[in-house]
Amino acid sequence: MFESAELGHKVDKKTFKTEVPKLRAELLDVQYDMLQKKEFPVVILISGVDGSGKGETINLLYSWMDPRHISTLAFAAPSDEERSRPYMWRYWRALPPKGKVGIFAGSWYSQPITDRITGQMRRSELDERLDDINRFEAMLVNEGALVLKFWFHLSKDGQKKRLKALEKNPNTAWRVTKESYDRLKTYNKLQSVAGHVLRISNTAHAPWIIVEGTDDEYRSLTVGRIVLDAMKRRLQQEGRRQVPVAPPILHAIDSKNVLSSLDLKQKLLKKDYESQLAKYQSRLAELVRDPRFAKRSLVLVFEGSDAAGKGGTIRRIGAALDARQYQIVPIAAPTEEERAQPYLWRFWRHLPRTGRATIFDRSWYGRVLVERVEGFCTEADWLRAYAEINDFEHQMVESGAIVVKFWLQISADEQLRRFKERQDTEFKRFKITDEDWRNREKWDDYVSAVCDMVDRTSTGLAPWTLVEANDKNFARVKVLRTVCERLEEALKDDDGKYGDK
Amino acid sequence: MFESAELGHKVDKKTFKTEVPKLRAELLDVQYDMLQKKEFPVVILISGVDGSGKGETINLLYSWMDPRHISTLAFAAPSDEERSRPYMWRYWRALPPKGKVGIFAGSWYSQPITDRITGQMRRSELDERLDDINRFEAMLVNEGALVLKFWFHLSKDGQKKRLKALEKNPNTAWRVTKESYDRLKTYNKLQSVAGHVLRISNTAHAPWIIVEGTDDEYRSLTVGRIVLDAMKRRLQQEGRRQVPVAPPILHAIDSKNVLSSLDLKQKLLKKDYESQLAKYQSRLAELVRDPRFAKRSLVLVFEGSDAAGKGGTIRRIGAALDARQYQIVPIAAPTEEERAQPYLWRFWRHLPRTGRATIFDRSWYGRVLVERVEGFCTEADWLRAYAEINDFEHQMVESGAIVVKFWLQISADEQLRRFKERQDTEFKRFKITDEDWRNREKWDDYVSAVCDMVDRTSTGLAPWTLVEANDKNFARVKVLRTVCERLEEALKDDDGKYGDK
Repeated sequence: MFESAELGHKVDKKTFKTEVPKLRAELLDVQYDMLQKKEFPVVILISGVDGSGKGETINLLYSWMDPRHISTLAFAAPSDEERSRPYMWRYWRALPPKGKVGIFAGSWYSQPITDRITGQMRRSELDERLDDINRFEAMLVNEGALVLKFWFHLSKDGQKKRLKALEKNPNTAWRVTKESYDRLKTYNKLQSVAGHVLRISNTAHAPWIIVEGTDDEYRSLTVGRIVLDAMKRRLQQEGRRQVPVAPPILHAIDSKNVLSSLDLKQKLLKKDYESQLAKYQSRLAELVRDPRFAKRSLVLVFEGSDAAGKGGTIRRIGAALDARQYQIVPIAAPTEEERAQPYLWRFWRHLPRTGRATIFDRSWYGRVLVERVEGFCTEADWLRAYAEINDFEHQMVESGAIVVKFWLQISADEQLRRFKERQDTEFKRFKITDEDWRNREKWDDYVSAVCDMVDRTSTGLAPWTLVEANDKNFARVKVLRTVCERLEEALKDDDGKYGDK
Repeated sequence: MFESAELGHKVDKKTFKTEVPKLRAELLDVQYDMLQKKEFPVVILISGVDGSGKGETINLLYSWMDPRHISTLAFAAPSDEERSRPYMWRYWRALPPKGKVGIFAGSWYSQPITDRITGQMRRSELDERLDDINRFEAMLVNEGALVLKFWFHLSKDGQKKRLKALEKNPNTAWRVTKESYDRLKTYNKLQSVAGHVLRISNTAHAPWIIVEGTDDEYRSLTVGRIVLDAMKRRLQQEGRRQVPVAPPILHAIDSKNVLSSLDLKQKLLKKDYESQLAKYQSRLAELVRDPRFAKRSLVLVFEGSDAAGKGGTIRRIGAALDARQYQIVPIAAPTEEERAQPYLWRFWRHLPRTGRATIFDRSWYGRVLVERVEGFCTEADWLRAYAEINDFEHQMVESGAIVVKFWLQISADEQLRRFKERQDTEFKRFKITDEDWRNREKWDDYVSAVCDMVDRTSTGLAPWTLVEANDKNFARVKVLRTVCERLEEALKDDDGKYGDK
């Protein structure tokens, strides 16, 4: 979920200086347009870890737009007026009217997150609150509001560095308090609570937009551009019945993403490969025979670029398992029977029972990958799929399944090499089709679909593992090692209650 | 919520015999139409109290349609195959494919309701499950399914009578077991749990349809007609993008409803009126001065036919209160400021703080009454309003508010008499406008809007009180007495935790 906000995104000062005037002019333009039409309000939530630049970005948005038509609302402890009414009352009275922009610095998410971290709120109470919030946001969107929820993320190291930098600068030193350092101590707890909160409230109508907070220029330019773009899109809907549309997920300004940041040069020599492969295969064989595994199940998901080596990797895993204990489910076009059912039905039917494993060679992620890119389903369909998929995996995990998801990535050059090799080799020719060549032309579309997928479905319970697959040996060992590690961790942790605790 | 299913609905055998052949022919027709087009499945849930005729109605539906294209699924304890997978797996695998009808006798609601009644499930666990269910049903509807959820209701007496009748008939006696009588003992608990479950899962895309179970002919004909009508409507949507549309809420076949069942002849003599008015006014004055009220608040909602006497009743309540302690909020057309906000905003702003009262003279129910009837909002808007309103009131109650809602009903004749009197009396003339006369022409539309409103928003936490208002004395005393009783009950019950417990 936070993977793409730990890549060290950066925009240099020069680019920033040339970009800002354009952005500013455009923002003012749409702001006035909005103001005249008075058709919808914009609700911007700025949340995230301490020291991630929430205040700075809000101030910049102020200076970029006409501040007379923005209201910023910072919520500290509720007043006695507020405490003696339903807890959402303070937010209701702060909502911006149609035509205006309301920036919520700290929002309906702040208190529940804090209370959960300090233990003042139980998990079940948090979840009830999140449902209230989801319904509230659905109402806002149904009433026409454009809701943009930003979460500013910092890696633990990043947070430490930010605090030091703020302290050094006499203008910002006052912002760093003892509490800021205290929060560093609860960093892991925050990440786990925030991960849960963001997953539950990552709805199709009001998804979270996660932004790396480290670099001021990157962060502010990113937020500014997303706000601009979303407002523009929403203005174009004018006249038509307002369809709730999620804000577009922008490519990063510095074009860094989770895929481009992979080091595809990683290799494993044949000798090392053979010894490590053997080691992890035998460890895996032991793990699935562990008596504790009888109450669990294993769900492996393989996605990846065409010709990235999914099949070969899956065979290396199968080699470690007893054929009676697992099945491989290759996912191609749905059968007639499957097309007559809800999208996820064909995956539900293949879930393993306890003590068993299912390996999905391609999976339910088809909806947000090929179906999205090829237009096989509507935007509304794939936008709601993220939440449906998270629900689906969450239900698996709660029933004891260990869900391990792999994306195998190769470079465009390596793919070309493999395609050619397949065409030239008699027994591999069946593996290459016209479709593969067509998909290749949509390389960039696939890259952004994969990045969105990782952003929205790499949850604490079912994280994605991105695998550098230019070298098959490296990839296979990384996959096997990851499966072993996830299994070990899960079996160690086995108290009979799975899922969020 | 169950009010309209306790009216003693009945269809005589002769009507039944003439209606069934037509219904049957039409049902078969749409069933084949559906089967050919294979555009959507129909998911029918038959739930409700024991002995309310679930089995009988399912059997009838079978005999009315082509049973080869219906699947009925009764869910008892999960098999070991099912237990070793996520709990929704058994329902996923039972889903009907497009073109077919699946009848769920006992459904994803059964287990949670039973477990909650027996105490095996905590309230928070139930609520988590209900969220899963809501998301699951939203997915079904988004995937194109027509979801019809029936709840068969019996009053406690009705249930007793049904059991006796089943026992008497040698063909049905086997159905009555010791367990059936045990369930009679938990009747109140079931009603309270079911009320909660139905409120939370009464979504705009898959609302509950509550049917009185007492009379076989009424129940089956009602279900048959609703199924037919919903399938027809859904088939007409063909081609267009499938918009989730809630099934229409049909007028009862025997044209009985919560309003027509009121005895409007009830009267109170002047002498009795004066003494009772004084009694309840002074009791009310005491209650709001009770130290325990300092932590609570009072929200009174007045809706009713035009000229039903809301104003006069409100003044009688005001007379018992300290002017500093309450405010009356008359709801007319929204102001410009209010129009620029979500619909419920203008009501949120007037919520009383603790220790205070607000009297709403007309209210948020305008959306499902006048706005629905006059077409001031879209069908989608008023359909989602029921759930939004229930949420809104639920949040009030959880913050300590006591919410008392009145519908004042007069007969059409009495209304005409009052309208004429207003026109003829100088100082009352301002009270009658052309709009009142126009509304009167839509009498029937208002009746069905009110019935739907009561069905969907008369919750355990914020029930409606329907007031027979042809006699003003009677109405005023009934209102005052109800306010006092609700307040007494709430203050007695005060453990600092409000809402569902």
